[in-house]
Amino acid sequence: MRLRNVKNAKERIEKSEFVIHNPVEYKHHFQKLFLNSNPIHIEIGTGKGQFLYEMARKYSTINFIGIEKYESILIRAIEKVEKNPLPNLKFICMDAKNIDTVFEKEISCIYLNFSDPWPKKRHANRRLTSPIFLNLYENLFAREKRIIQKTDNPILFESSLLHFSQFGYTFLELSFDLEHTTIENIETEYEQKFKQKGMNIYYVNVYKK
Amino acid sequence: MRLRNVKNAKERIEKSEFVIHNPVEYKHHFQKLFLNSNPIHIEIGTGKGQFLYEMARKYSTINFIGIEKYESILIRAIEKVEKNPLPNLKFICMDAKNIDTVFEKEISCIYLNFSDPWPKKRHANRRLTSPIFLNLYENLFAREKRIIQKTDNPILFESSLLHFSQFGYTFLELSFDLEHTTIENIETEYEQKFKQKGMNIYYVNVYKK
Repeated sequence: MRLRNVKNAKERIEKSEFVIHNPVEYKHHFQKLFLNSNPIHIEIGTGKGQFLYEMARKYSTINFIGIEKYESILIRAIEKVEKNPLPNLKFICMDAKNIDTVFEKEISCIYLNFSDPWPKKRHANRRLTSPIFLNLYENLFAREKRIIQKTDNPILFESSLLHFSQFGYTFLELSFDLEHTTIENIETEYEQKFKQKGMNIYYVNVYKK
Repeated sequence: MRLRNVKNAKERIEKSEFVIHNPVEYKHHFQKLFLNSNPIHIEIGTGKGQFLYEMARKYSTINFIGIEKYESILIRAIEKVEKNPLPNLKFICMDAKNIDTVFEKEISCIYLNFSDPWPKKRHANRRLTSPIFLNLYENLFAREKRIIQKTDNPILFESSLLHFSQFGYTFLELSFDLEHTTIENIETEYEQKFKQKGMNIYYVNVYKK
């Protein structure tokens, strides 16, 4: 995503009640933050937040946390929830590399929507489904492990499927053309633009016990 | 593949020494036929036989059996091996539906090259990687189970990956564009024509213990 500098993004994020400012303190106890024992789903690379906002609105008995590295993008997600607050939606401004310092045995599902594909081989480790990241996710999950990925990039998708399989995940749903399926789909901002070009979306829903 | 009637195909197949005429008699004892204890690999839908012929020439310590339903196509494969005989290559003229009547705990690898994709949902059971066929294959394998598939059809490939995963297979190699990988590839007749149109080939190599 092209980054535009947004004035005061950092300051506004620091003041927002929808941002978890000291996430490490909640490690293994994030449900306390939501004052309930509902399952926690996270989106890594939440961008401008449309997907997670719609999910949180639709599924009020799930707690959602959006993780985004860039303040200038995250501020757009925060603006959405500040306009129409939802009790089950929070954000963390951080790099996914450090995600294991924040969560421990408490996540039920990870969403990876249109992650940076890092298509060059020498950058493959940076993909959010590389063995490095899949290893990192192992200890985040509560019981069953579930990851749901959407992407327009065949190189990323190919390597994701390979690594999911090699990490022992089973595919529950798989599509090379999400639009022409009956799979429930809440679109991201990027996805809407991309679909207008008539290109297809790859989708996979994997789990392991 | 478009079928052309080939004169005397049936009679010529019946006479060929490279065809196993009574395969059921060899069930569980196919190595006897080859007079060695080398592993047996089969190709289901062997077509005109180029792939399996080249494999047999390259890997002399593997026994290959090509299975093809249509006599008018199989005769082309037989012509190849009659011209330049190979001791480790045989053919069976049969429908894959009955494959479990022929083999039992003796196959090391199944190749599925450009199988009929049966793209319509109502025909999905006919795909050679449908649960019906994967179930049928279970009892064919000696120890480890291995299937290697190539196709140009995304609908077939998508459903293959889903079912491989759900049957407990792990992906060893996966590509959405075989030509641009370092994976060893012996081409089929169909593949050569298809590649000339600049279209890409899907490839997957799966196994389970």
